[in-house]
Amino acid sequence: MAQNNSGGTPLTLLGLGAMGTALARAWLAAGHPLTVWNRTAARTEPLAAEGAAVAGTAAGAVAANGLVLTCLLDDASVREALADADLDGRDLVNLTTSTPGQARALAEWAGQRGARFLDAGIMAVPRMIGVPDSGGYVFYSGSRELFDAHRDTLAVPADTRYVGSDPGFAALHDVALLSAMTGMFSGVAHAFALLRREEIPPKEFAPLVEGWLTGMAPYVHLMAAQLGSGDYVTGTESNLAMMVAANATLLDTAREQGVSPELLTPYLELMARRLADGHGAESDTGVVDLLLH
Amino acid sequence: MAQNNSGGTPLTLLGLGAMGTALARAWLAAGHPLTVWNRTAARTEPLAAEGAAVAGTAAGAVAANGLVLTCLLDDASVREALADADLDGRDLVNLTTSTPGQARALAEWAGQRGARFLDAGIMAVPRMIGVPDSGGYVFYSGSRELFDAHRDTLAVPADTRYVGSDPGFAALHDVALLSAMTGMFSGVAHAFALLRREEIPPKEFAPLVEGWLTGMAPYVHLMAAQLGSGDYVTGTESNLAMMVAANATLLDTAREQGVSPELLTPYLELMARRLADGHGAESDTGVVDLLLH
Repeated sequence: MAQNNSGGTPLTLLGLGAMGTALARAWLAAGHPLTVWNRTAARTEPLAAEGAAVAGTAAGAVAANGLVLTCLLDDASVREALADADLDGRDLVNLTTSTPGQARALAEWAGQRGARFLDAGIMAVPRMIGVPDSGGYVFYSGSRELFDAHRDTLAVPADTRYVGSDPGFAALHDVALLSAMTGMFSGVAHAFALLRREEIPPKEFAPLVEGWLTGMAPYVHLMAAQLGSGDYVTGTESNLAMMVAANATLLDTAREQGVSPELLTPYLELMARRLADGHGAESDTGVVDLLLH
Repeated sequence: MAQNNSGGTPLTLLGLGAMGTALARAWLAAGHPLTVWNRTAARTEPLAAEGAAVAGTAAGAVAANGLVLTCLLDDASVREALADADLDGRDLVNLTTSTPGQARALAEWAGQRGARFLDAGIMAVPRMIGVPDSGGYVFYSGSRELFDAHRDTLAVPADTRYVGSDPGFAALHDVALLSAMTGMFSGVAHAFALLRREEIPPKEFAPLVEGWLTGMAPYVHLMAAQLGSGDYVTGTESNLAMMVAANATLLDTAREQGVSPELLTPYLELMARRLADGHGAESDTGVVDLLLH
């Protein structure tokens, strides 16, 4: 395949880990002239065979195209890779996992060097990249002009969701969803542990827990509405007084089954604290406030 | 409405809280002759007006019909209500929330008194009872004969799922699903807390978190397959080494946003422990084993 497959915006990608490689292939397949760079040069070889131009240095890769994307290990890797590059007039899109604070600082640094900046949070695993209707997508925040100028190119590997001009918002949305997921899997791990010593095949339980979690996920809309209004009573179906009473059964069952309750207790304790503070008629939405300091 | 609306199996229900009342209405609406008892007699009045027979004592209610259901506050309330009742030849179905151990002990106690016994775990809130396709259902475990004999009657308020002859299994499934849900909501609470001080309306974030959790819930099938096989590597897409590295971003973001990480740290620490124990190529399935003692 030759590199001059025309039609798409030319772009540069720094970083060819599993995610970077998947992104590179999606743009190549869509006909975008692509220049790649990777700290370990061996990872560029398969992509060169597929039509990518390979730059010997990160600065050289940045010089090759107006649109530059980074998909590196962490924020420090981005700073290091771009240290010697001339960013003046460049459109820089950072796909590297970072915190909102790191993204905001990088935006400021890039702006001082004359680049427009967009930060991104990839809500997908590599196998979902370039696959239509995979369910994966990418959050973007920062320069709206950059996003609008390159929207079609950015949409090649996965659907795009622009979440605001604050460059930290893409990372914040990304981390918030990953945090919610971590909680879900901690609950799932506890559930599987409860059954571990019984003759209940995990494969028979799995569809039940999937169906239950999927069915209960819409509860987030009540929590959102209550956080928005500040009224944690209206709309409440199971109040804290009822939930804390039921929580005793969760803890007693864990004890009976020989399972440590450590994954559940922090949330149960916050619910009990809200109840003790006189919020028994509310839902558990008030736990959110207890987490802020 | 008269009580002799024929066609349905006559039954007795002890306990008219919000759930018991919803159950009673579903059976009455389906034409089942129903006898009710409640410790606080006032709650029987609306149901009497709708056609239920009211018993003055729990023992009298039990004597009225061969099929007896209990939907009371807790296990102790069931023992107390049935203390003076003649259970010989009765079919007893306990819909009261209890632990697996309590259900097993109650099954033994009922058996000694000549009753067949079925324990139940209701996976629904009162407004879902008697509503076709509400998504709610009831786990049953214990006497298969009792379940088969009364399957149609039991299916009136909600779909039925028989999960085994061990009378503790209905409660165990119930508690396992509630525990998984508790984990999910703890993650959601953390996620909302991360956004709490930013100009991101909770209502705009809610569909994102619902979609993400729903999309990630099928991951439970990988965990189930790995628990079944004992091989925690095959099928792993994100391994522990990658996850623990990413967890640092979750914790750093919580710190930046002024959010206590207490709802996340127990799971993150168990993942780090598995990694330190040399399981970096595995998924997080091994956390389940760390919970068992």
